[in-house]
Amino acid sequence: MSMKGLVYEGCGKKAWKSVPMPTIQSSTDAIVKLTATSICGTDLHILKGEILRVTPGRILGHEGVGLIQSVGDAVSNFRSGDRVLISCITSCGKCLYCSRNLQGHCLNGGWQLGNEIDGTQAQYVRIPYADTSLYAAPKALKDDQLLLLSDDLPTGFEIGVRSAKIAPGETVAVVGAGPVGLAVLITAQFYSPASIIMIDRDDSRLAVAEDLGATMTINPTKLTMNSVLDEIMKAINADSEGSDTVSTNQAPKPGVDVAIECVGAPQTFDTCQKIIAPGGRIANIGVHGKSVDLQLQDLWSKNITITTGLVSANTTSMLLKLLQSGKMKPDQLIPHRLKLSQIERAYDTFGNPSKEHAIKMYIETDNL
Amino acid sequence: MSMKGLVYEGCGKKAWKSVPMPTIQSSTDAIVKLTATSICGTDLHILKGEILRVTPGRILGHEGVGLIQSVGDAVSNFRSGDRVLISCITSCGKCLYCSRNLQGHCLNGGWQLGNEIDGTQAQYVRIPYADTSLYAAPKALKDDQLLLLSDDLPTGFEIGVRSAKIAPGETVAVVGAGPVGLAVLITAQFYSPASIIMIDRDDSRLAVAEDLGATMTINPTKLTMNSVLDEIMKAINADSEGSDTVSTNQAPKPGVDVAIECVGAPQTFDTCQKIIAPGGRIANIGVHGKSVDLQLQDLWSKNITITTGLVSANTTSMLLKLLQSGKMKPDQLIPHRLKLSQIERAYDTFGNPSKEHAIKMYIETDNL
Repeated sequence: MSMKGLVYEGCGKKAWKSVPMPTIQSSTDAIVKLTATSICGTDLHILKGEILRVTPGRILGHEGVGLIQSVGDAVSNFRSGDRVLISCITSCGKCLYCSRNLQGHCLNGGWQLGNEIDGTQAQYVRIPYADTSLYAAPKALKDDQLLLLSDDLPTGFEIGVRSAKIAPGETVAVVGAGPVGLAVLITAQFYSPASIIMIDRDDSRLAVAEDLGATMTINPTKLTMNSVLDEIMKAINADSEGSDTVSTNQAPKPGVDVAIECVGAPQTFDTCQKIIAPGGRIANIGVHGKSVDLQLQDLWSKNITITTGLVSANTTSMLLKLLQSGKMKPDQLIPHRLKLSQIERAYDTFGNPSKEHAIKMYIETDNL
Repeated sequence: MSMKGLVYEGCGKKAWKSVPMPTIQSSTDAIVKLTATSICGTDLHILKGEILRVTPGRILGHEGVGLIQSVGDAVSNFRSGDRVLISCITSCGKCLYCSRNLQGHCLNGGWQLGNEIDGTQAQYVRIPYADTSLYAAPKALKDDQLLLLSDDLPTGFEIGVRSAKIAPGETVAVVGAGPVGLAVLITAQFYSPASIIMIDRDDSRLAVAEDLGATMTINPTKLTMNSVLDEIMKAINADSEGSDTVSTNQAPKPGVDVAIECVGAPQTFDTCQKIIAPGGRIANIGVHGKSVDLQLQDLWSKNITITTGLVSANTTSMLLKLLQSGKMKPDQLIPHRLKLSQIERAYDTFGNPSKEHAIKMYIETDNL
């Protein structure tokens, strides 16, 4: 039996083609018939050849919603016909790292879909450890809403907001307003920072950011680095406005409390280290293909914290609740709706965000 | 009135010479007659010209014990004749950063001694904000014990042990077994890690580390980097010994839980990033003169935390209690005892740790 899938064919190359249908390989597996899938910035990093574990022949994709087609004998949470959200992280639930709530580093799983095993940009996908890697999809939520919970929202929340320990009243800068950067913007507001500054080279993404609650947006292509810093200082000073006394003891902080890197490039990491205040936290979410120059000669004394991380998706259930409660409305992240048979066009659109005003792609399964 | 002091005279140069006596400049000042002082690794960084704020003419030194000579009108905790421990951090106690318990970044103080104002390698020193920057010296503690509380022990504890959140049962590597690295070794044991691996190029320092509780010592000059990693993996495997089952679910972690950089050089930082396990913490204590290459292409997905920091010395009172209780015995860190008039010889000794087996210098004031 064959199906169609989007296959990585080595650096820079991909093909939409016929591939064998997945089958149950272990009693803990499930086969899911996809109803929706998407493309992640990480898929673009893979296509650039930056993620070396991905070998030619691999079906890409680690996001999706679908219907259970079949399950292995040991699967007890799901049965054929169930509608499920697929998490980008598959985890066994019983290794050392799962016990530490670091499912992203599961010794038997982790980020495998579209990386070490075939992924979700296809008609069907095999999900290992189905009981601990799939989530029952609430009827009230549509596929396009759920898609953001496969990766973007848990990643933005866990590796950005939670790692950086955003607290009420703080000044937060988010570098990169793609789907993950916007997920940070949405979920950072759970903790009531005083201001959230969004930095991106694309004005259409910044416009979405303003709709979603950004207190300031900066397009660095229109400014020198010093002007970017000036703009940020203005935002910080605005946070202190209304104070009666002007005292050197309460001088505005020289930088932001939190900077979150959502791009994965040396220059965006550099922006974060330039704008961080003493005692501040830099959370790196971006997938990097090369090393960065860490300015320890300036930072050694600044009492900063830098965190990195792959999502563990252990907040997916919590985020599902917030989505159902209406406290999160991520629908604006999906301006593009295409069919699975148009996935190559979807890649072209997603890969040119400035031209196409692309944010998140909602790719619906059609009759192929 | 003049006194003798050790004066920085530009990159690579210092002189032991007559300088004016310090005087009370603000009502919150105290003048302290030193009975003991010391030399810090940071002083060597200054002499290399790596800390650009330090200008020629500055008396060096930020560690010391002494007797209060005189106090300004606003000083209420101390009076003439009191024996005091001098903290490397002077802090006003009432600015934004002091209120956040980040006294190292005090807007009116911070690390100023021997940096932005004259320091303690002299007969007398002016201490700003005496009430919040000096500590009454318990009679039971000798000068050579107290000296380690000016900087080394609070720095090792706050910026190493506390920032890295060392927990019971963990595997800890400390890169650099100078006074601060050994302070980390001593204070890490408050939290009962399973093993503490000390890494240094000097066997005599490693011998002291073994006396102080290191479970393994590694001299990297005798090994390739791969062998250093092998040695560390051996230590980690030893932590897991006694387990009945050999299961891939409980496989030893590929690295240490905590790595603490106590040198301030690109290669020692690099060791830390090479040996850290997923979910691990790197605490940088070292004073760096240049940037380092952060391997984000490997680390972006590893869920690690990197912290930096200048000590705030807000644990000094707690460490004084531990010292009095006998739970910390740092005396072994002081094999060299010299007179203040021999301070240039003390610098030569401290600057050649391998040849001189120097760790911490105890420099006692003599009649000049």
